Amino acid sequence: MALEILRVLDENDIKSKHPIEFIAMIEEEGGRFGGGVFGSRAMTGQVDYQELLDFKDEAGISMAEAFEDFGFDPKKIKEAERDPKKLKAFIELHIEQGPVLENEGKDVGIVDFIVGINQIRVKVEGRADHAGTTPMDMRKDALSSAAEVISEIKNFAFEAGSGTVATVGSLDVKPGAANIVPAEVEFSVDIRSKELNCIKKVRAEIDQALADIETKYAVDYSVKEMLMVEPVELSAEIFNTFKKESKKLDLNTKEMISGAGHDAMIMAAITDVGLIFVPSKDGRSHTAEEWTDYKDLQKGIELVYHTVLKVGEAE
Amino acid sequence: MALEILRVLDENDIKSKHPIEFIAMIEEEGGRFGGGVFGSRAMTGQVDYQELLDFKDEAGISMAEAFEDFGFDPKKIKEAERDPKKLKAFIELHIEQGPVLENEGKDVGIVDFIVGINQIRVKVEGRADHAGTTPMDMRKDALSSAAEVISEIKNFAFEAGSGTVATVGSLDVKPGAANIVPAEVEFSVDIRSKELNCIKKVRAEIDQALADIETKYAVDYSVKEMLMVEPVELSAEIFNTFKKESKKLDLNTKEMISGAGHDAMIMAAITDVGLIFVPSKDGRSHTAEEWTDYKDLQKGIELVYHTVLKVGEAE
Repeated sequence: MALEILRVLDENDIKSKHPIEFIAMIEEEGGRFGGGVFGSRAMTGQVDYQELLDFKDEAGISMAEAFEDFGFDPKKIKEAERDPKKLKAFIELHIEQGPVLENEGKDVGIVDFIVGINQIRVKVEGRADHAGTTPMDMRKDALSSAAEVISEIKNFAFEAGSGTVATVGSLDVKPGAANIVPAEVEFSVDIRSKELNCIKKVRAEIDQALADIETKYAVDYSVKEMLMVEPVELSAEIFNTFKKESKKLDLNTKEMISGAGHDAMIMAAITDVGLIFVPSKDGRSHTAEEWTDYKDLQKGIELVYHTVLKVGEAE
Repeated sequence: MALEILRVLDENDIKSKHPIEFIAMIEEEGGRFGGGVFGSRAMTGQVDYQELLDFKDEAGISMAEAFEDFGFDPKKIKEAERDPKKLKAFIELHIEQGPVLENEGKDVGIVDFIVGINQIRVKVEGRADHAGTTPMDMRKDALSSAAEVISEIKNFAFEAGSGTVATVGSLDVKPGAANIVPAEVEFSVDIRSKELNCIKKVRAEIDQALADIETKYAVDYSVKEMLMVEPVELSAEIFNTFKKESKKLDLNTKEMISGAGHDAMIMAAITDVGLIFVPSKDGRSHTAEEWTDYKDLQKGIELVYHTVLKVGEAE
């Protein structure tokens, strides 16, 4: 996308008031070294030399070593930092990684918020007992109790509104035998919303539901905080420019929130940020089936091109 | 227990109309070779030479080899079979393996039924999706759906009555990551009751609950039958003798069902069977904490002794 836009600008000899730069970010997913959104974190001054020594790939090679092999001096990582005063805007195009655009027949999603994320791990502790000889009213069944909370979490997300989502993605049962009442259950909860209040509301309802099963079934519980990232509001000005330009281009757009973190989320700390989505086939992402048709991608590129002309104040 | 009773009969030179025999059953738990209730199955003609070749311990030694090492001829296993016409009764004392007797301050449990058991494995299939980018109403969440069924199962057991119990002891989630909507959940259900109808009722309600989530959440499910053993009613005559004798001995008794399988369950196919329980400390069993105080055990032994005198028609 970025390369194509620069080519067109160059071919048509277009000048702009603000210089236009294109950036290929590395390690957004943290696929080799872990951590993620590395490029934008480095550009916003959030990476230091120590991190380059600490983060290693599966072969044990540190980021610092990989930098040196490539001809970079890892000690100069702070030189990647950009001066906010010298930046006007950062614009990103991403695949949706979800099914909404395709399902609704939309060309492009224009993002106003990147969701905040709260991840927790919940442990419910009961008591292991013989599944045949222990009457129902003398049990402290960790799984049966936890299931009561888990089955309610989707309702908490619906009721919070604003597109809030909540997911229990992993769950482990101990001892985990067919004829033993579960003694311990540990599960993850991932809550995302563009509204911090909605995240807090879902979280409070989960806490209440856990307190309820503690009272009803005499189980114990604990909650461990794993991740708390506040929602990020993107630039209203760039958002509106996207909307105007897409009308001119006759694109069918949808205002969206981004449910996943992206470099745009990090860059928003130092400059105005715009982000659009193009459709993901069947909503699939991070699998071999991940796909966006070229014609769908092109519509996104056209929109970013015309928005860049406006934001960069081309002549 | 059996050795002590025989000693007392001998010391007091007591003669009975029916000869009294004591048996130490092996492999009731199937601890070495798997399978379980081996002794009673052999005595009721349910074990053949082929099984002795097939069942092996962890070191790969077959039951047949272990028989030979011990000086037994495994080919003569059918000689273990007892002729029902020559048996009057079989009486067993077992630890309760549950908390009821201790909690209620009872000396002895007198068993009328050994529960039937239905074990199934349920698979619920949804679709893996990004936990951030997939709206709540576009998901097929296998765990959230399964949790709705699992949280209801205890109620199905309560409502069925007759001491029916139902347990989800194991559960696996795939892919099992905090940020991915669960695609597949597999869990066990263990249903036990002295009434076959109660087992069938709980089972039917589980099937209905699964059909409901299939409709509500567009998930698929399948149920695999793992074990179906019908309840066994023990001898009413021996049960009543236990009750009368315990009154004479001033024992505090409770009529109970047995939630676990025992040799008594197998022996009931060929003769009248009586079974009593003595308390298990804290209801624990099959752990290092398993314990029955000698004074508690002695009360059970006294009751069996006097019952044996009646059933054996001692002079």
